[in-house]
Amino acid sequence: MYKKSTILQLTVFICFGLVAKISHAQASDEEQIRQFYKLSLLEGQSYQWLDALSNDIGSRLSGSLGAEKAVAWGKDELDSLGLDKVWLQPVMVPKWIRGVPEYAYLETSAGHSTNVPICALGGSVATAPGGVKAEVIEVHALDELKELGREKIEGKIVFYNRPMQADLINTFEAYGGCVDQRYNGAREAAGYGAVGVIVRSMNLRQDDYPHAGAMSYGDLPNTQRIPAAAISTNGADLLSNTLKLNKQSKFFFKMSCKNLADVQSYNVIGEITGSQYPNRFMVVGGHLDSWDLGDGSHDDGAGIVQSMEVLRLIKKAGYRPRHSIRVVLFMNEENGLRGGTEYAEIASSKGEDHVFGLESDSGGFSPRGFTLDIDDANFEKVQGWAPLFKPYMIHYFEKGESGADIGPLKKDGIVLAGLRPDSQRYFDYHHAANDTFDAVNKRELELGAAAMTSLMYLFDKYGVSQ
Amino acid sequence: MYKKSTILQLTVFICFGLVAKISHAQASDEEQIRQFYKLSLLEGQSYQWLDALSNDIGSRLSGSLGAEKAVAWGKDELDSLGLDKVWLQPVMVPKWIRGVPEYAYLETSAGHSTNVPICALGGSVATAPGGVKAEVIEVHALDELKELGREKIEGKIVFYNRPMQADLINTFEAYGGCVDQRYNGAREAAGYGAVGVIVRSMNLRQDDYPHAGAMSYGDLPNTQRIPAAAISTNGADLLSNTLKLNKQSKFFFKMSCKNLADVQSYNVIGEITGSQYPNRFMVVGGHLDSWDLGDGSHDDGAGIVQSMEVLRLIKKAGYRPRHSIRVVLFMNEENGLRGGTEYAEIASSKGEDHVFGLESDSGGFSPRGFTLDIDDANFEKVQGWAPLFKPYMIHYFEKGESGADIGPLKKDGIVLAGLRPDSQRYFDYHHAANDTFDAVNKRELELGAAAMTSLMYLFDKYGVSQ
Repeated sequence: MYKKSTILQLTVFICFGLVAKISHAQASDEEQIRQFYKLSLLEGQSYQWLDALSNDIGSRLSGSLGAEKAVAWGKDELDSLGLDKVWLQPVMVPKWIRGVPEYAYLETSAGHSTNVPICALGGSVATAPGGVKAEVIEVHALDELKELGREKIEGKIVFYNRPMQADLINTFEAYGGCVDQRYNGAREAAGYGAVGVIVRSMNLRQDDYPHAGAMSYGDLPNTQRIPAAAISTNGADLLSNTLKLNKQSKFFFKMSCKNLADVQSYNVIGEITGSQYPNRFMVVGGHLDSWDLGDGSHDDGAGIVQSMEVLRLIKKAGYRPRHSIRVVLFMNEENGLRGGTEYAEIASSKGEDHVFGLESDSGGFSPRGFTLDIDDANFEKVQGWAPLFKPYMIHYFEKGESGADIGPLKKDGIVLAGLRPDSQRYFDYHHAANDTFDAVNKRELELGAAAMTSLMYLFDKYGVSQ
Repeated sequence: MYKKSTILQLTVFICFGLVAKISHAQASDEEQIRQFYKLSLLEGQSYQWLDALSNDIGSRLSGSLGAEKAVAWGKDELDSLGLDKVWLQPVMVPKWIRGVPEYAYLETSAGHSTNVPICALGGSVATAPGGVKAEVIEVHALDELKELGREKIEGKIVFYNRPMQADLINTFEAYGGCVDQRYNGAREAAGYGAVGVIVRSMNLRQDDYPHAGAMSYGDLPNTQRIPAAAISTNGADLLSNTLKLNKQSKFFFKMSCKNLADVQSYNVIGEITGSQYPNRFMVVGGHLDSWDLGDGSHDDGAGIVQSMEVLRLIKKAGYRPRHSIRVVLFMNEENGLRGGTEYAEIASSKGEDHVFGLESDSGGFSPRGFTLDIDDANFEKVQGWAPLFKPYMIHYFEKGESGADIGPLKKDGIVLAGLRPDSQRYFDYHHAANDTFDAVNKRELELGAAAMTSLMYLFDKYGVSQ
């Protein structure tokens, strides 16, 4: 039996040791994260990469020359990082082309017309070669069509004009509340005999940019498909106000877009093989394809270069990951999700054990935190890391969706996370001609890359609880 | 003596009542704040006001015609809000004019020169009518001058080239670490016989905009004052690189700026008189003056229109404040702080009891929270309000400085607060020609106004603990 004083000493010793160990672990996490931030902000590569991707290559719609160039560029850049493996993963992608730029006008009365900015929605069929000209019927929701009935719709252009709800703080929520008009509007309207569809752009700002984006005809036969275009928010207001004055006003639009056969493309993948769990995979990625109007700097050039930067920073910092960490530059998020689907299918067929996925596909704006598709035990762990992020103004850790490309990896035992940048400006640029390099701030981009690297580091170091 | 069950019932009753009361108070605060946000985002006035202030009036340097117009505009707009009182508070302000636009070039070798973008610092004297041309000595800190000594400095232009520290997350901290070069650089260099001073712009971005800002000669006699200008970050790098190749490279600059006699100007003040404590004042404000290069949309047009919006939203929401709430459009923050000083002096001489001050002077970017100059008891109260702000992504409540204009109100028993928007882009625009209306996002501006209104409401409702 020990003397009291010995027990006390022992207790003090154990406690001191424990505290010292915790302090050391914390200090070390703090130092490691500080190093990632310093490297990203002082010697970062993400902004130069974005410059190349946006300005040297430009837009990268699936199946386009731009997308092909981006694949080659991505592979070259990953090759230059000294990763353990870099490869291309073949994936067939849809090919839709815009053709000759679209053209539209609004005829306010016979002989009086004004041009309005539109763009074909991705996947739309062309108009007749001479264009479509018809009266317009304005609606604010898909189910209004049923009330109106075929009688009031047949032979007309349906104009979906429900705006994004401006009092929602999260602009993605406002987007989610409108995007049915763009995605399903043409399919619905065709069923009532409409000859075309015009959709108010998903944009919270008043301006002259039409915003592209995917639409679908579902299983509608080719013969029943009608052309669908987005109109700028200013254009939508003009059209709506004109209809209030004259219901008989006619709208003309002409588009030569078309769907071609699928073509070969690739996901671009790089890997640092894990030191302890080489067969457990952690993935970070964004999508390499973009719409064709701007150069896709926010959507999703930012996510691509941030994801590449995660692996570069890990190497640069001399951190040796325990798990295998992959960067995946996914192809075809915008109009098919073929890359994300293919990656998950191959991972599954090879029995690769994926335990963590992280995506950046919400723009290169000032990062606020992460949403996580996660169970309670792991979520508690993440919340315990919040103090490590506080000095970097990363405060938002909430359960929620992660990202479209990593979504297909979802299964028990995987944590999926999405970077959440400030969302206020995102839909000013989303899918529009002004989504260009100058709209991205260097520091905001770099802060996002550092936040992602820090989260990846913590999941690698402390593991995902199964 | 009560029976156990009675005591239990009583306890349950009291507890239930307490919970119900708290829930009701919370629900009501939540609802009130939600209403402020809805009004700001759906029926806001701040953005239209900024449009007028930036695009109709433009730059508003103290003593300029723009500043005079802005005073008249501010009074008119406050008059239109149906406040209880609106008045102008006279204040004499310094008048410095830029004169003919500046001009500078760098002579790399005899006969070879290149123009570089500069701007006179506010308060600087002119160069000789024909300009100044001299060799350049580059330094990174004021105390390097002492090491170099008069011998190496006399007859030369001192070039202060210490950049903002990019790995600091809070860009205001990086600014604070550099601004001594701009403010005191000329005074120091004059003491060693320098003939002029060129200062690297306080900008974290590489671009061609020189950034203005105040400088001081202290008590240096007029005859010893030397001209001082800012150079763009690209220009600074060019100059530094050129000096590395050829130490004898000469720099030329020509400026005709001058200090004139003080002129009459005004703070613009509006008040809603308190229902319960009409003699306790809560102030919200920003500064109406700006530098002369852009139109001062971020600095501090945003703060002006947000502060006006606070009172408009309070009235619009039908909230009847208990304290008297004033909006103050302060004059002359940039080069003198005369408005803030005068306001505090008059308040003190009249024995007006100011208990809360709130300033917005950090740009119209997405709001993150507030810094507070506050005692522990009141700080604890503010921290208790944090959950009310969470749905609006307002997470940052820290002790710190509030704002320059309300600073002179500091005394025991007053809480001073400053809105803290995201700081990453602020110094891209600060005091430069690109601080213009298009750099402000409507929603971000409106979210700031709503956050400010919410904090004002909470302090009004729950009071400042003395």
